[in-house]
Amino acid sequence: MKNILGREIPEFIEGYGNVKQYKGYLSNKDGVIKKDFKFKTISAQDSKLHTDLNKLMDKLPLKDGMVVSFHHHLRNGDFVLNMVMEEIAKRGYKNITIAASSIFPCHKGLVKMIEDKVVTQIYAAYISGPVAEAISQGKLERPAIMHTHGGRARIFESGERTIDVAFMAAPTSDEYGNINGVDGKSACGALGYAHTDAELANIVVAITDNLVEYPNTTIEINQTLVDYVLVVDAIGDPKGIVSGTTQITKNPIGLKVADLTAKFIEESGYLKNGMSFQTGAGGISLAVAAQLKNIMKQKEICGSFASGGITGYIVDMYKEGLFKALFDVQCFDLDAIKSAKENPAHITMSASMYANANNKGAVVNKLDVVILGATEIDTNFNVNVTTGSNGVIMGGSGGHSDTAAGSKLCIIVSQLVNSRISVVKDKVTTLTTPGETVDILVTERGIAINPLRKDLLEKFKDSKLPIKTIEELREIARNMTGQENEIEFEDEIVAVVEYRDGTVVDTIKKVK
Amino acid sequence: MKNILGREIPEFIEGYGNVKQYKGYLSNKDGVIKKDFKFKTISAQDSKLHTDLNKLMDKLPLKDGMVVSFHHHLRNGDFVLNMVMEEIAKRGYKNITIAASSIFPCHKGLVKMIEDKVVTQIYAAYISGPVAEAISQGKLERPAIMHTHGGRARIFESGERTIDVAFMAAPTSDEYGNINGVDGKSACGALGYAHTDAELANIVVAITDNLVEYPNTTIEINQTLVDYVLVVDAIGDPKGIVSGTTQITKNPIGLKVADLTAKFIEESGYLKNGMSFQTGAGGISLAVAAQLKNIMKQKEICGSFASGGITGYIVDMYKEGLFKALFDVQCFDLDAIKSAKENPAHITMSASMYANANNKGAVVNKLDVVILGATEIDTNFNVNVTTGSNGVIMGGSGGHSDTAAGSKLCIIVSQLVNSRISVVKDKVTTLTTPGETVDILVTERGIAINPLRKDLLEKFKDSKLPIKTIEELREIARNMTGQENEIEFEDEIVAVVEYRDGTVVDTIKKVK
Repeated sequence: MKNILGREIPEFIEGYGNVKQYKGYLSNKDGVIKKDFKFKTISAQDSKLHTDLNKLMDKLPLKDGMVVSFHHHLRNGDFVLNMVMEEIAKRGYKNITIAASSIFPCHKGLVKMIEDKVVTQIYAAYISGPVAEAISQGKLERPAIMHTHGGRARIFESGERTIDVAFMAAPTSDEYGNINGVDGKSACGALGYAHTDAELANIVVAITDNLVEYPNTTIEINQTLVDYVLVVDAIGDPKGIVSGTTQITKNPIGLKVADLTAKFIEESGYLKNGMSFQTGAGGISLAVAAQLKNIMKQKEICGSFASGGITGYIVDMYKEGLFKALFDVQCFDLDAIKSAKENPAHITMSASMYANANNKGAVVNKLDVVILGATEIDTNFNVNVTTGSNGVIMGGSGGHSDTAAGSKLCIIVSQLVNSRISVVKDKVTTLTTPGETVDILVTERGIAINPLRKDLLEKFKDSKLPIKTIEELREIARNMTGQENEIEFEDEIVAVVEYRDGTVVDTIKKVK
Repeated sequence: MKNILGREIPEFIEGYGNVKQYKGYLSNKDGVIKKDFKFKTISAQDSKLHTDLNKLMDKLPLKDGMVVSFHHHLRNGDFVLNMVMEEIAKRGYKNITIAASSIFPCHKGLVKMIEDKVVTQIYAAYISGPVAEAISQGKLERPAIMHTHGGRARIFESGERTIDVAFMAAPTSDEYGNINGVDGKSACGALGYAHTDAELANIVVAITDNLVEYPNTTIEINQTLVDYVLVVDAIGDPKGIVSGTTQITKNPIGLKVADLTAKFIEESGYLKNGMSFQTGAGGISLAVAAQLKNIMKQKEICGSFASGGITGYIVDMYKEGLFKALFDVQCFDLDAIKSAKENPAHITMSASMYANANNKGAVVNKLDVVILGATEIDTNFNVNVTTGSNGVIMGGSGGHSDTAAGSKLCIIVSQLVNSRISVVKDKVTTLTTPGETVDILVTERGIAINPLRKDLLEKFKDSKLPIKTIEELREIARNMTGQENEIEFEDEIVAVVEYRDGTVVDTIKKVK
């Protein structure tokens, strides 16, 4: 059966269970329940400190079929997931569910554990590298669940899944579990994706390579949530943790897209005092920020906040007085980490505060303008950022669907044609973000406005900007690329794409 | 039947229910459950802002028998409890339970509501003034429940009681409910007692007289927890909110007690680098802090943290480098409020983080030395800070039992005899804090060590300090006061004294 987005979604998926069907991004208005969880109290007589992973593992109630969780703030420099999973595999446990906020190429060791049925289920908002490929090849026993950043908070807060043990990379901790991410040799900045795990896992193990005297005086996650503190030599490789300096695109086509985007925002009426803004760390997105910065300075516009993963470019805008505050769920570079430590109005937030649709109001709800990328976009403005042009998993929503749903103006920026492949399709390979939450596509060949946004169509009807329909952009691209071949898949479902409210917006099939 | 503290506690109390009996302060080592709660999600389209109490009240699902909560950070200057309860009374609701972290003389309007059965049940950690007297006179329909600061967090986190609506005084808020207590004309500092309510009430209403632009850049309680923001002219009277300047005692007997206490701490071995310390805002306690400050400076000792309600005296010690950090659940004066805003290592904490026995480790667990007061202490070192010499309620545990249980050295400081009344009794009128958690009594006539502390008895056996048994101190006092008359009570139980773990350590009877 087809859902309202035109995707074939079965009512039941083997290894996943019954499917909640998507009914529109605003359909789920019911009250929700934040679930109870059980934990052991720790008294003044108990010590939390351990220095030997092996001995600590002996104490934990590990078992077949358990759910273990990790956050991805150490990105492609993370040692913690590998360290812990190797020990779990060595001990012979099977049928483990990994709930990692994201999975990177550095986690390639998981592939063998997937093949050996040590790991049989994965939850993540973003998966790239060998693990993504292994999933697309059908190696994981049960379908992977690819949620959004806000959806992850919802899954655990609602009790839909329970985390047995959260293993939490902690760049700095004291012996009682007061943690921050801004100090230490493995500093990564904000720890937004770790909060839900800390708050709701039955057992929380903080793993640190920078033990400081009690009390750690900068606390993002506090002692009342942590059962054990394990000290190790290194939790990550600093080279992989931060990207060094994130870079504005130098590609002239990308710069053209950025220029058009900035002009569109200016003309849209959203660029005004009090505007809130989010952009990713991609080259075009950063170029948009650079353009906006100039316009805001010229026009003496002071925005309200910038949010999301924070980069040095956004920090600079904050320092120049263009934003009053930064809401930060993760830091992308060293400048952002430094700012998170030093600037009081650089506010670290949990993934739930950032993007969960089921709390009393996430930050994305207050977002005016968000700039997002796309691998594919269809003529209904549905976006794919999950699978590549070969149909293989290479990413995931992250905060894409969350910010699209919350923001007043969601702009997708992309080259129209890249390596002879068009970004606009009749139908996206995988549907990550519903088109009803996407307002604009900006390409070097023109700007398409979602017909649902009648207000913007009216506003831009006499604009000098190259406004086109998305069908026109598709035609322009098709003339350049020719008809593209459809990707062929097997019937087997290897991953389920969950929208932020837990409804299933798409499935991903095994590649041929 | 008598419990292990020698108190007669029935198995069942009318209007309270079945009684959990106290089995020792370390007896409750089981895992606990942090309870689920239901709430309505708020989407990007919803507004939280209200400017009319009346219209907001029309929206709330108010009902007979509901539980409404308040925090006491505005102390005797609070307008919020009165404002809300008057509106509830006007609307004719009955049988309301008030869960206020403390109740002060300014809340005297509640007495009529108690008489009219609008309010039939009260939870509080501290009650003074007309409401306390009304309870002792048996006017409240059901026994009041007098818990500890940490116990209050436990009651709601465990789901033992559910808060229907939390009305939360918010010295500063934006329109989406990002709150702090350090800014605005009604600034009160840390909002530690409000956290549990914000996290667990079904509906949270922030009431502010200082609405700032979104986002408020100093956030103690965030938007994901708040349903409505109500703007009013004034939430409190600044003169009642802070005590002005808290004062060191000038009474020579009090100074003698402080001097002996400081000497005792110095000789005890606890005064060393890394020591953590808490003291109240009472005149003798502050005098102890002043003495310790001199000794620490002289000996170049740097402590770890000071905790609790924070005063300007403690802030000064922090500024002089005598403590590395401050853990602050409430600010007692303007200097403390200013420091909470400005000093990064002045860390605001929730009541649960401060003192809850049922989380993964409260700050009191890390406390070395705490200085506490007493109205009465018996020869088993049980302490009363709940009722006065006339048997009438005039206080309550607050953090007394919590810090006594968590700390390594719990010292009670008091004049031995005051207004011809001895602090040492054969039996305390009301048992607030179990003697097994109290180590030392210091009076102007001598220092008594709890016989349970064999290590300290040994350490001080050759001390030049006036070490005595507590029975000796009782005799000295009795020679000065003569035999005191026992207070007479009716049979009716008007209040139940709950220990931090929810066991009942005592009951309070109606005064004759």
